[in-house]
Amino acid sequence: MKFIEKLSNSWESSSSMLCIGIDPNPDRLPKHLFDNEEPYFNFAKAIIDHTHDLVCAYKFQAACYQSAGKEQQLEKSITYLRTTFPHIPIILDAKRSDIESSAEYYAAEAFVRYQADAVTVNPYMGFDTVKPFLNYQNKGIIVLCKTSNPGSKDFQELIVDGMPLYEKVATTVSEQWNSFNNCLLVVGGTWPEQLANLRKKVNTIPFLVPGIGEQNADLEQVIRAGINSNGTGLIISSSGHITYAGSGVDFAAKSRNVSLSIYNNINELRSIYNAKD
Amino acid sequence: MKFIEKLSNSWESSSSMLCIGIDPNPDRLPKHLFDNEEPYFNFAKAIIDHTHDLVCAYKFQAACYQSAGKEQQLEKSITYLRTTFPHIPIILDAKRSDIESSAEYYAAEAFVRYQADAVTVNPYMGFDTVKPFLNYQNKGIIVLCKTSNPGSKDFQELIVDGMPLYEKVATTVSEQWNSFNNCLLVVGGTWPEQLANLRKKVNTIPFLVPGIGEQNADLEQVIRAGINSNGTGLIISSSGHITYAGSGVDFAAKSRNVSLSIYNNINELRSIYNAKD
Repeated sequence: MKFIEKLSNSWESSSSMLCIGIDPNPDRLPKHLFDNEEPYFNFAKAIIDHTHDLVCAYKFQAACYQSAGKEQQLEKSITYLRTTFPHIPIILDAKRSDIESSAEYYAAEAFVRYQADAVTVNPYMGFDTVKPFLNYQNKGIIVLCKTSNPGSKDFQELIVDGMPLYEKVATTVSEQWNSFNNCLLVVGGTWPEQLANLRKKVNTIPFLVPGIGEQNADLEQVIRAGINSNGTGLIISSSGHITYAGSGVDFAAKSRNVSLSIYNNINELRSIYNAKD
Repeated sequence: MKFIEKLSNSWESSSSMLCIGIDPNPDRLPKHLFDNEEPYFNFAKAIIDHTHDLVCAYKFQAACYQSAGKEQQLEKSITYLRTTFPHIPIILDAKRSDIESSAEYYAAEAFVRYQADAVTVNPYMGFDTVKPFLNYQNKGIIVLCKTSNPGSKDFQELIVDGMPLYEKVATTVSEQWNSFNNCLLVVGGTWPEQLANLRKKVNTIPFLVPGIGEQNADLEQVIRAGINSNGTGLIISSSGHITYAGSGVDFAAKSRNVSLSIYNNINELRSIYNAKD
């Protein structure tokens, strides 16, 4: 099954456009998890067990695992998710880029080693560096476009060919890189104007939208700007705001409460802005 | 000691601007290495033992290790190099990028976990995403500028503010990001014209120059275009062309022969183009 189909099915069956980001931070993980040998795995498992009915996808932050040498717990977490809830798309947030021969290794890292359904990639090096990822036709290739951080203005907003660079990336992806219909774009929820502009330019291509929660993106603006003509099109990602809602043994139940609140907000706003269109 | 100082010392003590890239490819590694449990480590160790007097630096390709789950052999290889030849700069070629909180993990991955002296980073996401790396003032931050691959033209050559994007990246790095004097740039040897342009724009900032060997960059053009006013300024990197020169038990000796030939070529050309200036 193609990634886009798996994602569409997940949007429908979960009635959700919420994605929970799992970014294990040793300074923020509930202390009791360290009584066990696999705190990163048990953290992810508890979050998944308590929220799987409220999400359209999960996203794992590779940096957290790779700085700490916890790759095996990332493998185990993804395997647990794949086997327990096989319908839920799994995104590896790795933001990779390298020349073709090395990009082949990174594509294998994401799709063969970790068995993720989708991976984030950086477009700066150009088409031939993204092609090894695109060649996995049933996977999702999520290209950085307009990222959520303040510094995204440094280069992404510079004008090239009469448009901001981020828009050039988006139209290049949409018109040239998406021949297998396996591309998505990262568009930060912190930039609703740019989100609206991009939604017009690239039709129904799904957007991974970080920035809700700790980066303070406005959910209403995100949905108004980013929803597509199918009433979907968004993977609205929130990490620490959900997963660190509690620090006691009931942390995952508290994560569920926050998730449920965002889930409901999203669906209320969907009904308003979908109906309006 | 600052990275730039360690690099300058290494250029001087080795009389070399050659960097050997270690990119373990299971399909190209000498077969006999697989008789041992740590083929990636023994490959790197043999190359290092046979070439350490001919190089100004070694570069490890993170993708090779991370696709194969061989992180511990990368750690062990870098530890071996650090402890045996502590004067040689070690570059982790990881091309990382992420928002600030995640970039902090990637900086820790490179500098704390792996104890590399320098790391490659992707500038697309902007200053705040590179800052966590720059804050390691004694490390080298090697920013992708004009990469060696053909697709680098897709975005890097687009005109912004009256100059190609790659030049905008270079001047931004040189004028704004380099306050700790710990920045370098990646400039592919396959683009001698752009290399010459950049050398004029950014004065003595060192360039990591891939593309010699399997990507067919012309060494003479690279040195003529890229040498700086100190007669140095280049880390000329070659990987498979050197490390896969042989496939038998004498592979490392063959690697030395190829390295020695490039080492001599570089120094002959340095004497010509340095003298001319």
